[in-house]
Amino acid sequence: MEYQKILNQIEKEFSETKLSGKVASYIPELAKVPPDKFGMHLYDREAQHYCFGDSNERFSIQSISKVFTLALAMKVVGDDLWNRIDVEPSGDPFNSLSQLENEGGIPRNPFINAGALVVADVLVTHFSNPKAALLTFLHEITGDQTICYDDTVAASEESKGYRNYALANYLKSFGNIENDVEEVLDFYFHQCSLAMSCKELAQAFIIFVNEGTTLESDREILTAQQVKRINALMQTCGFYDEAGEFSFEVGLPGKSGVGGGIVAVHPNRYSVAVWSPPLNPKGNSALGMAALERLTALTGFSIF
Amino acid sequence: MEYQKILNQIEKEFSETKLSGKVASYIPELAKVPPDKFGMHLYDREAQHYCFGDSNERFSIQSISKVFTLALAMKVVGDDLWNRIDVEPSGDPFNSLSQLENEGGIPRNPFINAGALVVADVLVTHFSNPKAALLTFLHEITGDQTICYDDTVAASEESKGYRNYALANYLKSFGNIENDVEEVLDFYFHQCSLAMSCKELAQAFIIFVNEGTTLESDREILTAQQVKRINALMQTCGFYDEAGEFSFEVGLPGKSGVGGGIVAVHPNRYSVAVWSPPLNPKGNSALGMAALERLTALTGFSIF
Amino acid sequence: MEYQKILNQIEKEFSETKLSGKVASYIPELAKVPPDKFGMHLYDREAQHYCFGDSNERFSIQSISKVFTLALAMKVVGDDLWNRIDVEPSGDPFNSLSQLENEGGIPRNPFINAGALVVADVLVTHFSNPKAALLTFLHEITGDQTICYDDTVAASEESKGYRNYALANYLKSFGNIENDVEEVLDFYFHQCSLAMSCKELAQAFIIFVNEGTTLESDREILTAQQVKRINALMQTCGFYDEAGEFSFEVGLPGKSGVGGGIVAVHPNRYSVAVWSPPLNPKGNSALGMAALERLTALTGFSIF
Amino acid sequence: MEYQKILNQIEKEFSETKLSGKVASYIPELAKVPPDKFGMHLYDREAQHYCFGDSNERFSIQSISKVFTLALAMKVVGDDLWNRIDVEPSGDPFNSLSQLENEGGIPRNPFINAGALVVADVLVTHFSNPKAALLTFLHEITGDQTICYDDTVAASEESKGYRNYALANYLKSFGNIENDVEEVLDFYFHQCSLAMSCKELAQAFIIFVNEGTTLESDREILTAQQVKRINALMQTCGFYDEAGEFSFEVGLPGKSGVGGGIVAVHPNRYSVAVWSPPLNPKGNSALGMAALERLTALTGFSIF
Repeated sequence: MEYQKILNQIEKEFSETKLSGKVASYIPELAKVPPDKFGMHLYDREAQHYCFGDSNERFSIQSISKVFTLALAMKVVGDDLWNRIDVEPSGDPFNSLSQLENEGGIPRNPFINAGALVVADVLVTHFSNPKAALLTFLHEITGDQTICYDDTVAASEESKGYRNYALANYLKSFGNIENDVEEVLDFYFHQCSLAMSCKELAQAFIIFVNEGTTLESDREILTAQQVKRINALMQTCGFYDEAGEFSFEVGLPGKSGVGGGIVAVHPNRYSVAVWSPPLNPKGNSALGMAALERLTALTGFSIF
Repeated sequence: MEYQKILNQIEKEFSETKLSGKVASYIPELAKVPPDKFGMHLYDREAQHYCFGDSNERFSIQSISKVFTLALAMKVVGDDLWNRIDVEPSGDPFNSLSQLENEGGIPRNPFINAGALVVADVLVTHFSNPKAALLTFLHEITGDQTICYDDTVAASEESKGYRNYALANYLKSFGNIENDVEEVLDFYFHQCSLAMSCKELAQAFIIFVNEGTTLESDREILTAQQVKRINALMQTCGFYDEAGEFSFEVGLPGKSGVGGGIVAVHPNRYSVAVWSPPLNPKGNSALGMAALERLTALTGFSIF
Repeated sequence: MEYQKILNQIEKEFSETKLSGKVASYIPELAKVPPDKFGMHLYDREAQHYCFGDSNERFSIQSISKVFTLALAMKVVGDDLWNRIDVEPSGDPFNSLSQLENEGGIPRNPFINAGALVVADVLVTHFSNPKAALLTFLHEITGDQTICYDDTVAASEESKGYRNYALANYLKSFGNIENDVEEVLDFYFHQCSLAMSCKELAQAFIIFVNEGTTLESDREILTAQQVKRINALMQTCGFYDEAGEFSFEVGLPGKSGVGGGIVAVHPNRYSVAVWSPPLNPKGNSALGMAALERLTALTGFSIF
Repeated sequence: MEYQKILNQIEKEFSETKLSGKVASYIPELAKVPPDKFGMHLYDREAQHYCFGDSNERFSIQSISKVFTLALAMKVVGDDLWNRIDVEPSGDPFNSLSQLENEGGIPRNPFINAGALVVADVLVTHFSNPKAALLTFLHEITGDQTICYDDTVAASEESKGYRNYALANYLKSFGNIENDVEEVLDFYFHQCSLAMSCKELAQAFIIFVNEGTTLESDREILTAQQVKRINALMQTCGFYDEAGEFSFEVGLPGKSGVGGGIVAVHPNRYSVAVWSPPLNPKGNSALGMAALERLTALTGFSIF
């Protein structure tokens, strides 16, 4: 499979595309990212790298971080996690409170904000320094020690994050947050502020391609069973209320973030990350979705 | 892969399991099926058959029929279908009306009842004799000319199907049913009444394994692209509000029916059907879900 | 209190008002009513009549009929009615199905369509000829033997009433309709088709002013307790999702219909009916609401 | 009307009633109130007092305070208030977040918690010391300078009020809270902690009986129009999702609190307060509702 050729073709095709969508603007740090940034990086199971464009530039990974915290929480507390979070697609926007109201404070899945806050609470309970623990985890799976939080982004989210404050307090009212709301939110805003490049994201996600084991360092991070489940969750819930559309058009498990990043994996084949800041009305990178759809069309296979 | 050995083991393991769940009882024809019926049939891409138990006995396929009507509708009207139905998981029970109310009469996906009624309407519009057309389609993909409707079941559903009457009229009030409500429902109740065995279901679903082409007769029924999309829909929406759970535990696209049948496919590998009438609280075969979970555990792979 | 003077002033003030709103158009019979029809009739406890404009012209009373069927059902089955219908405001549009879904098929109140269908079912069960029984009831309380159904309107509603078909079938699926759906709907579409003038409506509603007894013939139709309850229901639920607004601005119990009619009562003082076809976005007569607001402002009292 | 005789009869009838319901227990200060407390106080327009039982004992008025803050806010900002709050019954529990989600952050009415928080925000904006301003207002309308907050109750609510924190942050996310969430909540928890007796409540509510003017000091606090509107709101929205039931059974505007208090008014006749801590499943005093129902039955009139 000549991945580089296909990536080149995608770059070429979309370089002529007029950008639609709007860059996230609820905090100034995201609003000021140039909308024409565009990069893609594919990392295959043979440890080969393929890329184009701004694939080495770090951006705010935002909700993509929810995959990392979920992986870490599954590692440390195992299946107990599922007493506090469900695994069903939500059919509602990512920050909906209604669903919690109807279902007794149990978030539908770990990728809506409510679910990610419960995951954050699990990590805050388990680690004395959860922020450091998450960085250590990322450094281990990527082999890159420089990945870190963007404190300006985190502080900005903190000052505007009324809806996340609402969600966390609401979960607490149902007893589904154990720690101080402030502490959980501080961790959560930091995880969202993580800055990573397409290359780093593709490297990090290779564990979901390779049954839980890193490729170069060959460390078992998760069991094959855990990876299967995380991939299943990305497939059904990774794109807010557009998960079905992504599954339908692209056919790979993946996760998006409002910073314009999307990461997807083809189990046993490759991980791929794409970045383009303008978002479609559902909050997913418009160009990123299109590029990944093109990728599975050109490679001729998806998981289905 | 020694599928027969694995099937034998599943049969043995579950023969000792105490059955939980309740057989569907809203019509007498379903209520009187013996709850201890249990069969499984796996059909692989090498056209080999593996099975155990009551795998040759026909039962009411019910909602599994929605995959066949969707396939036929995609074949005859193409992507126009998606102007009238969405492709997102619903997060609501299969017969919910609320979702339609909030979304202007567009069903969330073709596998909730509302979506299947729109698909039925498409077929009623397109074929002068839609019931005959659906049988012809099934005979073609299975190579079995004896598959037919169970008129007693259809009549029974018709006499009790108030909620489906409600759904169809509601869709009509939004202009999303073109034909007479009675005619659409008559077709719908017949499609649900189709009687097929696990073996016949596995044979019928092989087109979703084999990129749209039948295995023995080698006819192209659907394009690879259409198959990919149907599989994606089964993955995200095939199990009512338990689609996430099935994806999480089993990791294959599939579709269940209240008759106790479940069919799943592993693209490029095999299709598999299982039948056990008692249903879990979400309306899916309890033993069927467990058997398929065991299958992917024992074979060591899912699509993820 | 010089009611005639006040009515004259209202007529004068609003004759200069530019009409806003849209005449109901879902059936041709309503759509072709001239939008500039405007009449008002006040009937006080001293049996005096005050009026202006088109107050003697009959129009389609539509949902106002729900007060009559409720009164008749309370008369014939008493408090058993409340096992099948609640008495709470709905907060949803008049023809919402979601509420039923969340509350097990018990309509929120007798004035939303679902509730009125259950009331209709009660009358269909109780009377061998419910349509005749309702006319007899109306003839008795008004003293006018000519009030009758408009069969053209009823037939037209029947041919377009998909949402009411949906509601009735949905209620039936919960077991909250005892009779044939068709029979209940036939009665319901007829009750909505009743043609009455403002004068006749004010006369009919005087029983809600006079503790259940007609004024001129002095017959006790309902008990004082029943009247109190019907008035309470009109106060909290008489105007779809604008009941609060009407209570807030006008301060009287009342009921509106999509034909542009509104009837209100001031217990122990007067009943008043107003008619102007153009509806506001919530489906209530725009000019009718304004005229009644003006009436309570000019008379200087409401029930509060 | 011999009110004292009627009150005596009510006391006697209910003294033999076995108490049902549960005392509010979400904070210790409410949980420890003896469940058999029972008192009632009626204050008529002739400035006569009638009472029985524990009518002079102060208790936590909780949500009854929302009527006072609404009155004060209407006094200071007038109709601008209605740009930020609607006047419709909610059909949802008092602390629902879903409704806000569907309606862009505009609370359905000023008596659900979300609406009361917006009212609190209005007062925090308008007064440099809103807590003092509210006390001054209460002292003025009751003539009693000793009414005050219960700081222990307020602190306890503050420490457990996760759902109110959720609501306030959620409103802030829609821009419908102007001030710091903490400041608004501090005021809100204090208003709920107000301790008043049945006698004091009946005295305070006499302005809603007497067109806005105090009875003994003869001060105009509100206009007749404002009073009419507040009464209309109490009628349609004063009892959470049981407002219809109260209107139906009692037929008076009123407001309840989880401390077990209920105040109702009959415009131009009397105000009446009742206190009994055990609550029915909807959160209203079970015995209080029954006693008021008996009162309107024995007096033979309600507003309807």
